[in-house]
Amino acid sequence: MVGPTAVATLEAPKRPDRASAAGRSECCALFHRAVELVGKRWSGAILSVLLDGPLRFSEIRALVPDISDRLLSERLKELEAEGIVEREVLDDHPVGVEYRLTDKGKALEPAVGALKRWADEWLCR
Amino acid sequence: MVGPTAVATLEAPKRPDRASAAGRSECCALFHRAVELVGKRWSGAILSVLLDGPLRFSEIRALVPDISDRLLSERLKELEAEGIVEREVLDDHPVGVEYRLTDKGKALEPAVGALKRWADEWLCR
Repeated sequence: MVGPTAVATLEAPKRPDRASAAGRSECCALFHRAVELVGKRWSGAILSVLLDGPLRFSEIRALVPDISDRLLSERLKELEAEGIVEREVLDDHPVGVEYRLTDKGKALEPAVGALKRWADEWLCR
Repeated sequence: MVGPTAVATLEAPKRPDRASAAGRSECCALFHRAVELVGKRWSGAILSVLLDGPLRFSEIRALVPDISDRLLSERLKELEAEGIVEREVLDDHPVGVEYRLTDKGKALEPAVGALKRWADEWLCR
């Protein structure tokens, strides 16, 4: 037997505030790729410390806790292949290699900054 | 034998434009957690389509190409556990479930928006 509550439920009109999925665009493939790229484990952390300026390998290691040499090396190569990071051989003594963001990498600052602000506001509660 | 070029290289002073890593802060643990959370495969895409308004499971499926039912279900549960997404049972006919962003989820809009703009500008070249 169908009670009054069930009837009310069945007869309820579609809620007017419900947005329809029709006409909404698919998640953009470029955005999805960007998330995969920046969101890969440690990539965001590496970008974050390089946004303050160029660093040597050992300096990145010191600023990104818990990353291994192998993984840092792998991530830097990936970011370099994507044109986000570039290496420069320093003419310092001792000779060293420095990693810096390209213009493409520096352009990630607003996204990294916005996510930092979100994290500060919402994840420390 | 050391030639003039090598001498010049060895004697070059430290470049003044090189930022020191000393005094720079470690990659913040909260930011790292935010990247892991939002950057997890498909999470960014799901957030992106939900930022336009609530959707049913099948509607998210239609708007996020290539995701499987199993993975979408898993991601939605994770985002719900993080307080980013909430479920609501609709009193529509047929009865359905809708997924919507919480305030914490909606607060990700600036970060998602900034990353979308970056992707549009730098990944389609």
